[in-house]
Amino acid sequence: MIPSKNRQIILKTRPHGIPQAEHFEIITSPIPELKSGEFLVKNEFLSVEPAMRGWVNATKNYSDPVGLGEVMRAFSAGTVIASKHSGYAEGDRVMGMLGWQEYAITDGKPVRRKVKEDDLSLSLSLGILGINGVTAYFALTEIGEPKAGETVVISAAAGAVGSAVGQIAKVLGCRTVGIDGGATKINSCINEFGFDAAVDYQSPTFAADLAAACKDGVDIYHDGVSGSITDAVVTHIKKGARIIVCGTIAIESWDPWPSGPRIERHLLNNAAKMQGFLIWDYEHRYEEAVAKLASWIREGRLHFREDILDGIEHAPASIADLYRGTNTGKRLIRLLTD
Amino acid sequence: MIPSKNRQIILKTRPHGIPQAEHFEIITSPIPELKSGEFLVKNEFLSVEPAMRGWVNATKNYSDPVGLGEVMRAFSAGTVIASKHSGYAEGDRVMGMLGWQEYAITDGKPVRRKVKEDDLSLSLSLGILGINGVTAYFALTEIGEPKAGETVVISAAAGAVGSAVGQIAKVLGCRTVGIDGGATKINSCINEFGFDAAVDYQSPTFAADLAAACKDGVDIYHDGVSGSITDAVVTHIKKGARIIVCGTIAIESWDPWPSGPRIERHLLNNAAKMQGFLIWDYEHRYEEAVAKLASWIREGRLHFREDILDGIEHAPASIADLYRGTNTGKRLIRLLTD
Repeated sequence: MIPSKNRQIILKTRPHGIPQAEHFEIITSPIPELKSGEFLVKNEFLSVEPAMRGWVNATKNYSDPVGLGEVMRAFSAGTVIASKHSGYAEGDRVMGMLGWQEYAITDGKPVRRKVKEDDLSLSLSLGILGINGVTAYFALTEIGEPKAGETVVISAAAGAVGSAVGQIAKVLGCRTVGIDGGATKINSCINEFGFDAAVDYQSPTFAADLAAACKDGVDIYHDGVSGSITDAVVTHIKKGARIIVCGTIAIESWDPWPSGPRIERHLLNNAAKMQGFLIWDYEHRYEEAVAKLASWIREGRLHFREDILDGIEHAPASIADLYRGTNTGKRLIRLLTD
Repeated sequence: MIPSKNRQIILKTRPHGIPQAEHFEIITSPIPELKSGEFLVKNEFLSVEPAMRGWVNATKNYSDPVGLGEVMRAFSAGTVIASKHSGYAEGDRVMGMLGWQEYAITDGKPVRRKVKEDDLSLSLSLGILGINGVTAYFALTEIGEPKAGETVVISAAAGAVGSAVGQIAKVLGCRTVGIDGGATKINSCINEFGFDAAVDYQSPTFAADLAAACKDGVDIYHDGVSGSITDAVVTHIKKGARIIVCGTIAIESWDPWPSGPRIERHLLNNAAKMQGFLIWDYEHRYEEAVAKLASWIREGRLHFREDILDGIEHAPASIADLYRGTNTGKRLIRLLTD
């Protein structure tokens, strides 16, 4: 049965820095009739990403900002419940940029993929089998170019991307050093995600702990945080090191633009590379990564955590949560069935 | 005739920052007898490089520092005047790490190459056909990966490396924007080295001039300077840009380590790459670059400038000169024949 009402989260005001609950509003809209070439998706899971901060800020970024009054841009996963589109049938499970809303009418363009891993939860398509896992896979393999025996350091190591990078690096024969904050996350790094070493950046002995964990230098650094953690890691890079810039979650605001120790001399002295990673560049190879990741999950070699909140009303505050680091895994919003 | 005395420049005290004349001393030493497997080179040209600052400072760098009392590490070019080495004969022209001295006894290991371009001045083997030209060639082609039609920005554009990068980029079909300081150098960029545009960083309108010259964004940035010039250029990089870190001559000291605007967000937003270039990684391909460069010189497509001082007594002050930017081309010391 096609519902008549759709709860949506729209961008109400534009944040300066990290978006808070107050920047969003939950509205209820009617669901119009499907036109030819459209289909209706009932969202089951909404994704929450650090990148959303960039999507709503007006600062130049890698995509145009979400407009005021528009449904918040977001990945979501759901099931097709009605279709006038030849490519999508009722019952198809899909994942795509369908927004923070209960239902999405789409012509299919924002759909990234049909989810065919029927033995695995649909929620995985937003995490380990979604942007997070695919990012981890291509960022590490394409920019990092890991070789067995190399030391890979990973910041935000207990996070959705970092924990996957660490485990993939282990599968590929590397030694892994995770960095994260607090005993719980350090424990996860070691006992859940199998890092060879894990260093707590909140500890007063962080610098010495990091140096001890990277005695032979750092070949690859996968960075999700920037800031003082990154500044500490780059002093340990080796000749030919590769630094993957995947996120900058430790930076509260880029307006005004923050300063830090200059990186160029480290890069020059070591003929090292620092490169930004955008998942969009690998869209055409998405299924290749998903297939690998799914096989490692089934083999028990790739673990992941989800931190699911029930109810769309949790979405507005959830981005700021990520920046406070209160989530314990990939943050998702599960939509309750009526 | 084998001479008996050798004038050498030794490192007397270790500088903190840019080495000045007072950090060196000119001494006269006896020339010992050649042993089997050795040969004697009469240096004709001594090279002066910005990198020498790193070679004499104790800070961690890409090579061990020159020891106090040791002959200053330097590239030089000269002719073999006596040999007990089967691979080198009297009259061979050689270039290598033979030091700031009139004569060098060597087993051949510090020799980089025999100079076979007999139609061209031996001095070129220390500049456009030496480290400078070979650096320009590989830095641009291997890290920059230029494609016809792309915009290449080059700092220190009138310098020995920068002017070569600009001209090679033109040969490869790119649009070139040079940055340097003062009317004389800007004039050289346009009229001597054929840059499509040249921007004076000493001008109060530098930021606007740079923006105007890079209206369509920057695909490749070859950087020899770091500092505020680089900070300005990176705000104009395009998706997929490549930043080649080749030198940091605008930074007076790395102790204490200087700060600047963080680069990582620019790299992330543009999936851009910043990579350090060390010529040593391309040693095995040196002749490939020299052959290309020499052919472009003979075809009149690659121009260069030399700034030659006569007499070894000019060497000690010459590094600081480079950092003041008073040289008008590749700085060399010519040794006067007795």
